[in-house]
Amino acid sequence: MRKNFGRSVLGISLVCASVMGFSQKKEPINVIMMIGDGMGVAQVSSAFYFGNSAPNFQQFSITGFSETSSTSHRITDSAAGATALSTGQKTYKRAIGVDKDSASIPTILEQLQEKNYKTGLISLTSVTHATPAAYYAHVKDRDLHEDIATQLVPSGVNFIAGGGIKYFTKRKDHVDLLKEFTKRNYQYHTSLDLLDPKKNQIYLLADEGLPSKDEGREDFLPEMTQIALDYFEQQKQPFFLMVEGSYIDWGGHAKNANRVVQEVLDFDKTIGVVIEFVKKNPNTLLIVTADHETGGVSLGKYSEKDPTTGKIVEVPRRVQIEFNTDQHTAALVPVFAMGKNQELFSGVYPNNEIYHKIVKAIAEAGVTIK
Amino acid sequence: MRKNFGRSVLGISLVCASVMGFSQKKEPINVIMMIGDGMGVAQVSSAFYFGNSAPNFQQFSITGFSETSSTSHRITDSAAGATALSTGQKTYKRAIGVDKDSASIPTILEQLQEKNYKTGLISLTSVTHATPAAYYAHVKDRDLHEDIATQLVPSGVNFIAGGGIKYFTKRKDHVDLLKEFTKRNYQYHTSLDLLDPKKNQIYLLADEGLPSKDEGREDFLPEMTQIALDYFEQQKQPFFLMVEGSYIDWGGHAKNANRVVQEVLDFDKTIGVVIEFVKKNPNTLLIVTADHETGGVSLGKYSEKDPTTGKIVEVPRRVQIEFNTDQHTAALVPVFAMGKNQELFSGVYPNNEIYHKIVKAIAEAGVTIK
Repeated sequence: MRKNFGRSVLGISLVCASVMGFSQKKEPINVIMMIGDGMGVAQVSSAFYFGNSAPNFQQFSITGFSETSSTSHRITDSAAGATALSTGQKTYKRAIGVDKDSASIPTILEQLQEKNYKTGLISLTSVTHATPAAYYAHVKDRDLHEDIATQLVPSGVNFIAGGGIKYFTKRKDHVDLLKEFTKRNYQYHTSLDLLDPKKNQIYLLADEGLPSKDEGREDFLPEMTQIALDYFEQQKQPFFLMVEGSYIDWGGHAKNANRVVQEVLDFDKTIGVVIEFVKKNPNTLLIVTADHETGGVSLGKYSEKDPTTGKIVEVPRRVQIEFNTDQHTAALVPVFAMGKNQELFSGVYPNNEIYHKIVKAIAEAGVTIK
Repeated sequence: MRKNFGRSVLGISLVCASVMGFSQKKEPINVIMMIGDGMGVAQVSSAFYFGNSAPNFQQFSITGFSETSSTSHRITDSAAGATALSTGQKTYKRAIGVDKDSASIPTILEQLQEKNYKTGLISLTSVTHATPAAYYAHVKDRDLHEDIATQLVPSGVNFIAGGGIKYFTKRKDHVDLLKEFTKRNYQYHTSLDLLDPKKNQIYLLADEGLPSKDEGREDFLPEMTQIALDYFEQQKQPFFLMVEGSYIDWGGHAKNANRVVQEVLDFDKTIGVVIEFVKKNPNTLLIVTADHETGGVSLGKYSEKDPTTGKIVEVPRRVQIEFNTDQHTAALVPVFAMGKNQELFSGVYPNNEIYHKIVKAIAEAGVTIK
C-alpha cells in the first residue's frame, strides 16, 4: 500500500515537473557585470563601517569566492583578471583578450553581440584600460592603449563611458578616431547630456582617467550607470553591461585609506542603482566581483589620545584601514550575485569559472553561446 | 485558453507540492560547526597556495560572509564571536554565553540536548577557552577558566576533547573536577586511546593548550574529529559537534606566517575528514566559519635575490603571508556550508544570524527549538 502510494507520488511529481517546465517562457536575460578593481573582502567590509547606511552588499543572498591567479603569476593584474572573466580562460599578466599563447579569444561581450544583445562598458579610467579593454580588444600587452582604442571603433559596443580621449585624438598615427565613431552612428558626449536612444553612445569625460572621489569626482558612476540602464531599457533587446569601480585599486596602490573607502562607497551606491533595476527587471542577472585584491588591506583597531588621561587608547566604535603593501595580493575575492539564475554563483571557484557560469545562466534562459 | 492552461498548471503544481511534502520523511539532522579561530579570507586563501593538493575549502558549493562586530567593540574577540554563534545574540567582548547585560542565555548545544541530541566539543586549546566555553558556560568574563571548568562538569556534553587539565585539577578551591566527571559516567583520556561507546568521553591532552603544528603537534585535530564522528555514529541519536581550529588566531597574534599556514592546512585536512562523513551521512549539516580575522593577513608578492644578477626579483609562482597587525580585525569572515539545508547559509549577514540559520535548518528537519 505504502509502496503504491510512493509510486503515485512519483507519477504526479513527474507530470507536475514537465507541465511546470513547459509553462516557463524562456526569455534571454540581461547580464550586468560589476567589477570592483582591487576590491578584496576587507575593502567590501569597509562599507559596513564607514558608510552612513547599511551597504548594498548586504542585499545579496548569493555569494561566492573567486580564486584569481594568472597563468604566469600567482598574483595577477587587471588585464589577466578581466580576461579570465571576459573569456573564460586564465592567461598571463598584462594579456588583454588573448590566451596564454597570445592568440585572440572571443569575449562574452562579442559572443552576446552575435546573439542580438546590446552591449555597454562603463569605467572611471580610460575606456582603453585593462578591465574594459578585456571585453572588446585583443592585444598582447595592456599598455597598447592606441591599438586598443583602434579596436574599440569597429567593436560595435553600443554604450561606452569613461575617460581616455587622448588615445582617440592625440595619436602617433594622427588619426582622429572620434570621427570614426561618428561615421558609425555614435553620439559623442563630453558631459552627461541627453542622448538619442536610436544611436550608439560614447561618453569620454577626461583625457585619461576621471578624477577619484577624493579628487572631486561627484556621482559619475551611479549616474552614468542609471543613464546606461535607461538607454538599454529603450532598446527592446537583451543587453550585457560591464561597470567598473576602477579606483578601489588605485586607493590600494597609493595606500590612501580615504580613497579606498570613498571609492568602495561610490561603488556600493552604484550597486544600489543596479539592484533597483534588477528588482524591476527580474529577467536580469547581476554579478559583482573583483579582479584581485590591492593593498593587502585590513580593518584594524583605531586608537587616539584620551583627552583626560593623555594616553593613547582604543576607540571601540571605530576601525581604520591598514595596508600591507602597495601591490596586488592573492587572496580569494568576493562574488555577489542577484537575479535570474543567481544560484550558480555560490561556492569557491577559479575566476575564469565566472564566465562559464554566465554562459550557463544564459543557456538556461535559452541562449546558447559556444 | 492560455489563461485556463495556466490555472490547470497551478492546480497540478499545488497538488504536487503538497503530495511531495507529505512524502518527505523528516529526520533530525546532525550539525557540525567548525570554527577557524581568527580565520579570515586571506588565511583560507593560503590553503590554495601553500598546500600540496587542492584545498577542501574548494569543495563547498555554498558560501557566505559573516559580519563579526560585538555590541561593545567593532573589532570583536573569540568570546563575543563564539557567543554570537552559539546563542544567536551579539554581546560584549569577553562575554561567554551571556547577553550584553551579562544575563545567561541558552546555547544551541543546550537547546539541542533538550531535543535528544548528543553533543561534542573539540579544541586545540583548553576546553575552557572562549570558543568551546561559549557553547556550555555562562560567565561574565572569558578569563574565569576555573568557573568555566566547574560549569563543564554538569553540562552533559558527551564528547569533550582538548587541553586545560590544570583548570580541573590544580584549582584554587582544591577540588579535583576530574573525579566529578568519573562519577558522571565519563571515561577520562590523556591520549587517543580506545573508548567505551556507552560512556561520555573527556580527553584532556595538555595542562593548558596543545602544541601548535610548528611546535610539533601531529594529527590531533583530524584524528580526534574522526574519533568523535565514529563515537556519534554508534550513539544512534542525532548529534551536535563543534570543532575549533584554535591556533590560526595564535599565528596571527604571533605574526608567525608558518604557524598560520600550518594551522590552516591542518584545519583544512580536518574539514576533509568531516566532508567524508557528510557525504556518507547526507542528513548532516556542516558549517565552517570564523569568529573574526586575526593579523590583518594578506598574501603578497614574494621576492628573492636572483643568483645570476644579484638583484632582488619577484618569484611569480610564490606568495608570502604579510601581517598588518598582531590584533584582531573587522573584515567580514567566510562561511562555508555543506549538507542538509546548506542553502540557508549563502549571502551576507551578521554573525549571530548563523545561529538562527542553524535553528531554521533544524526546524525544516522537524525539530523546533525556542
